[in-house]
Amino acid sequence: MSKDIITIVKVGGKIVEEPATLERLLHDFSAIEGFKVLVHGGGRSATKIASELGIATTMIDGRRITDDDMLRVVTMVYGGLVNKNIVAGLQGLGVDALGMTGADMDIIRSHRRGVTSAGVDYGWVGDVDNVNGEALATLVRAGVVPVVAPLTHDGAGHLLNTNADTMAQSVATGLTPWFGVRLVFCFEKPGVLRDENDDSSVITAIDPEIFTTLKEQGIVSGGMLPKLANAFDALRGGVEEVVITSASALDDLSGGTHLTL
Amino acid sequence: MSKDIITIVKVGGKIVEEPATLERLLHDFSAIEGFKVLVHGGGRSATKIASELGIATTMIDGRRITDDDMLRVVTMVYGGLVNKNIVAGLQGLGVDALGMTGADMDIIRSHRRGVTSAGVDYGWVGDVDNVNGEALATLVRAGVVPVVAPLTHDGAGHLLNTNADTMAQSVATGLTPWFGVRLVFCFEKPGVLRDENDDSSVITAIDPEIFTTLKEQGIVSGGMLPKLANAFDALRGGVEEVVITSASALDDLSGGTHLTL
Repeated sequence: MSKDIITIVKVGGKIVEEPATLERLLHDFSAIEGFKVLVHGGGRSATKIASELGIATTMIDGRRITDDDMLRVVTMVYGGLVNKNIVAGLQGLGVDALGMTGADMDIIRSHRRGVTSAGVDYGWVGDVDNVNGEALATLVRAGVVPVVAPLTHDGAGHLLNTNADTMAQSVATGLTPWFGVRLVFCFEKPGVLRDENDDSSVITAIDPEIFTTLKEQGIVSGGMLPKLANAFDALRGGVEEVVITSASALDDLSGGTHLTL
Repeated sequence: MSKDIITIVKVGGKIVEEPATLERLLHDFSAIEGFKVLVHGGGRSATKIASELGIATTMIDGRRITDDDMLRVVTMVYGGLVNKNIVAGLQGLGVDALGMTGADMDIIRSHRRGVTSAGVDYGWVGDVDNVNGEALATLVRAGVVPVVAPLTHDGAGHLLNTNADTMAQSVATGLTPWFGVRLVFCFEKPGVLRDENDDSSVITAIDPEIFTTLKEQGIVSGGMLPKLANAFDALRGGVEEVVITSASALDDLSGGTHLTL
């Protein structure tokens, strides 16, 4: 018997933080048939609200340094503002959404990242140790649609800030014992582009060898590097399909950039 | 066959917003045997963070006027900061907590309060219409402990700010078809006091007739009036026991103020 399919959609900050693009995304997401999970970011809102509170944002290699004050901000913004607006919006579209962090029902446990070999202390940033796929699968089979904010916990009472792409990959991989999993990274572009100024230059397929070449050529760089690394991790973890595409293409995943091993 | 007992604990802002009292509360709550739900406030934090963001707080009869900006603040603070710290803290104590607003799994639906007869527009404040007791009961029976933030939704995509005492009463009443329900309002005092400066002056029992007398004598006033009204509503809705007591007395509910009809 083949497994049921589940679709894990990751959406970045830019899409969920502007009312017009968020509304469109929620409509497109609500139209996805079958089992599904939404994983969201919220970094731009966190930076904006931190700034309004007089808290400076420091990013290293695209990752947020998370001291006590910044942890409070991301807990408010990711777990509250962004997450609950998505939940209410989806409920308004008839989707039985449930907002969750990794702490809720202990779905994603992590440990605080130590000081890196480069001497960087990211603070309250968590690297994922364990996904409670069974708890998620039980919710999903009961008709619930988890909406996951990029926060985890250490099992000892502390919340930790965790990269949303990594959360999506972890959730996807954690569900592979129960479902045939497809993972969709949505962002503003129609896929990974050969020329960032030309939306028609989508690279339709990337495997690890092509990835190495694209890195060497400087065609993929910045935030796309960890996103693609997460994508390959998902495939290695048993996820059946990984696509990087635009949020407006959620209804037809034949386009975009498909990852293969 | 008698129904299983469930304990609904409401804790106010002062307790959950200070690390020392919160830690004590979480320990006491985690020690409660059997099925349970925690409902929390967070008004002091909301006022503080609103102020830091340059947003003025206006209260009328103890209720917060909730315009667009204030709704964003309470969504961040109640749904994110306060709720997720409680959830992570309980998980650290082995309690399988799940943070929820009324929007999550559509557990509490409300409608926006219209302009009152006194001409007050409370903004995005919701009065409860419906509690999805079945969804809550299913979670609870699966071993999950809901931690409920004082936010609801209108079913059309909008979050609404809802009084935490009312939320607790609504959750308690909504669970009466499935459980024998007891509702505990925890605050800083050991119960309703005859003399607010004397902690030994607890009024051990209040029925509606005594309530009327206490009101006339000015012994109960301010925020205690709607709390007691909520308590009587809960009893009228089938809740078996309602107690107003101090958070530190959660292990022994024989003290405090017991409400009766």
